[in-house]
Amino acid sequence: MLNVLFSARDGLWGVYEEPLRKAFASRNLSINLQPDFSDPELVHYIVYGPTGPLQDFTPYSNAKAVLNLWAGVERLVKNPTLTIPLTRMVDTGLREGMVEYVTAHVLRHHLDTDRQVLNQNGVWDVVIPPLARDRTVAVLGLGALGEACARQLATLNFNVLGWSRRQKKLDGVSCFCGEDGLREVLSKSDIVVLLLPLTDGTANILNADTLALLPEGAAIVNPGRGALIDDDALLAALGSGQVGAATLDVFRQEPLPAEHPYWHNPKVTVTPHIASETRPETASEIIADNIHRNENGEPMRFLVDRSAGY
Amino acid sequence: MLNVLFSARDGLWGVYEEPLRKAFASRNLSINLQPDFSDPELVHYIVYGPTGPLQDFTPYSNAKAVLNLWAGVERLVKNPTLTIPLTRMVDTGLREGMVEYVTAHVLRHHLDTDRQVLNQNGVWDVVIPPLARDRTVAVLGLGALGEACARQLATLNFNVLGWSRRQKKLDGVSCFCGEDGLREVLSKSDIVVLLLPLTDGTANILNADTLALLPEGAAIVNPGRGALIDDDALLAALGSGQVGAATLDVFRQEPLPAEHPYWHNPKVTVTPHIASETRPETASEIIADNIHRNENGEPMRFLVDRSAGY
Ligand SMILES: NC(=O)c1ccc[n+]([C@@H]2O[C@H](COP(=O)([O-])OP(=O)(O)OC[C@H]3O[C@@H](n4cnc5c(N)ncnc54)[C@H](OP(=O)(O)O)[C@@H]3O)[C@@H](O)[C@H]2O)c1
Ligand SMILES: NC(=O)c1ccc[n+]([C@@H]2O[C@H](COP(=O)([O-])OP(=O)(O)OC[C@H]3O[C@@H](n4cnc5c(N)ncnc54)[C@H](OP(=O)(O)O)[C@@H]3O)[C@@H](O)[C@H]2O)c1
Repeated sequence: MLNVLFSARDGLWGVYEEPLRKAFASRNLSINLQPDFSDPELVHYIVYGPTGPLQDFTPYSNAKAVLNLWAGVERLVKNPTLTIPLTRMVDTGLREGMVEYVTAHVLRHHLDTDRQVLNQNGVWDVVIPPLARDRTVAVLGLGALGEACARQLATLNFNVLGWSRRQKKLDGVSCFCGEDGLREVLSKSDIVVLLLPLTDGTANILNADTLALLPEGAAIVNPGRGALIDDDALLAALGSGQVGAATLDVFRQEPLPAEHPYWHNPKVTVTPHIASETRPETASEIIADNIHRNENGEPMRFLVDRSAGY
Repeated sequence: MLNVLFSARDGLWGVYEEPLRKAFASRNLSINLQPDFSDPELVHYIVYGPTGPLQDFTPYSNAKAVLNLWAGVERLVKNPTLTIPLTRMVDTGLREGMVEYVTAHVLRHHLDTDRQVLNQNGVWDVVIPPLARDRTVAVLGLGALGEACARQLATLNFNVLGWSRRQKKLDGVSCFCGEDGLREVLSKSDIVVLLLPLTDGTANILNADTLALLPEGAAIVNPGRGALIDDDALLAALGSGQVGAATLDVFRQEPLPAEHPYWHNPKVTVTPHIASETRPETASEIIADNIHRNENGEPMRFLVDRSAGY
């Protein structure tokens, strides 16, 4: 019998209990799943939501792994009390939702559908946009989410440039890496999508210097993490016209405060961290699979590389 | 030497002259292309834009074919003076533009991105939309444009139902035909895309009776033709909530008059017949190819079936 602690913000236990029990049962895992254990030392695995109350992992001295419900682990990797293996979430539902969000907003900027949505004023204002084949879209970050988005955009004939830490090779996507690669990608891209994790190497990756490389009037779509962007630099670039539009889903502070300039800038669309959510059914399968693997001496999947920070 | 008349609205000659000459030259066609011939009897082919001045084809007694620049031929097929073969436009650029428009607006309704675009008011209003796999999209009309749109939507995991006059078979798309097929498709579809030609068989295909079949709150995207929809029935269905939203690109009267209720209905987005345009480079290739075929005794492509009306 394995003791599995479910620790996340209020409300999630009700959503995850049943799918997790089902996923454990389908693998014949004998598991005692609880949102609380009187004695932390009894706990073998922690299914974890980063916005919950548990921040000190020290008392869980017999735990074998923390299984994160989210894709992003930027705060967890900096938690000094967490020394056991940590897995992040890679989930079909999460991936599909992100592909839908990114495709929708890239097409929205490409076709400028806001021109009509915001101007239903009786004026027959004909502007024919270019074809996707005449637009270049950068996807920064080619991991579980970025790769899927890049591939989907390529099926729409966008000229897709991808950028990652290590050089990749993807059909239909021109791949770049390194500092020079980033500069080359940005200098060509009409639309830039950020799907990088937040690490020391990626914080403020869009800043005054790198935003200046973009073709004038480029659009930014950020469903990655707020701190990937230097907010003051972006606001200045929007002001000068260097950046034409930005759709931002993530912010240094969430909820984004009502007085933040992003809310009041007509070139910015704020979306409230809804780009994609872990879906309980598919995510529970990933978690059950990883516990099953670890108990059978197989390597767990989606282990976080603590030195790389993601 | 073949005499080819280019007859379309003002402005198009300047756009098409060069690409047409290039396409003719690349096939070694010896062609005298002009926007006007003193004697109509000299003309062998007519490259035709339906909104131009030429409406009486009688004087062109030696013309062998009319090559339409547009996909839609609903008025041309009713022109009694036009008795020679008529081809319609099937063009990669036209197809790609339509796929982009349809994908953008289906995703827009699916994710309800207008919720954010129209409400940048500082309120962090979290609503997570379902995944595309949990949405059903109908594509009515599976011709050159509808088929491409249906296939693209299927790559995004939408459950895609297609409907055409004759039964089709498409990978990833459930195909239907006939009156019963239409009723089944509509009764299941959260979003309906109209890519039918306007004919006696398709006029007012969305009417009070068929709109009532939809799941409550369904969305309509119409880049086909305005008269495919009974406007009063749609306005009533929007009023009752039976239809949740409509994006309309085409209308009985274009430009849509400023006082038309569609402009003033918050559930309707009017786009000014911009879904897709014939692109001169690729379209000129199609036209040159058809003249080349006809001169070599081969059947022309994309011939309009006058009895079917498209
Ligand atoms: N808004 C939302 O709703 C939402 C939902 C889910 C996730 N997210 C965000 O999306 C991010 C990406 O998720 P994922 O699952 O795709 O992550 P992932 O699989 O870990 O992929 C990260 C990608 O970023 C690249 N990368 C990391 N550091 C880099 C650097 N210094 N320079 C260049 N490239 C670098 C990696 O390169 P390598 O391939 O070389 O390792 C990899 O391609 C998450 O970290 C999270 O912040 C947001
Ligand atoms: N808004 C814009 O910018 C724009 C641009 C281009 C085109 N359009 C519109 O798009 C329409 C479609 O273009 P397309 O090139 O795809 O046409 P197409 O290749 O002729 O295809 C027409 C499709 O509609 C089906 N159909 C015709 N009559 C039907 C009926 N009575 N019942 C059921 N299905 C029927 C056909 O069935 P079968 O397959 O059995 O023949 C075919 O699948 C054009 O006619 C035009 O009105 C609009």
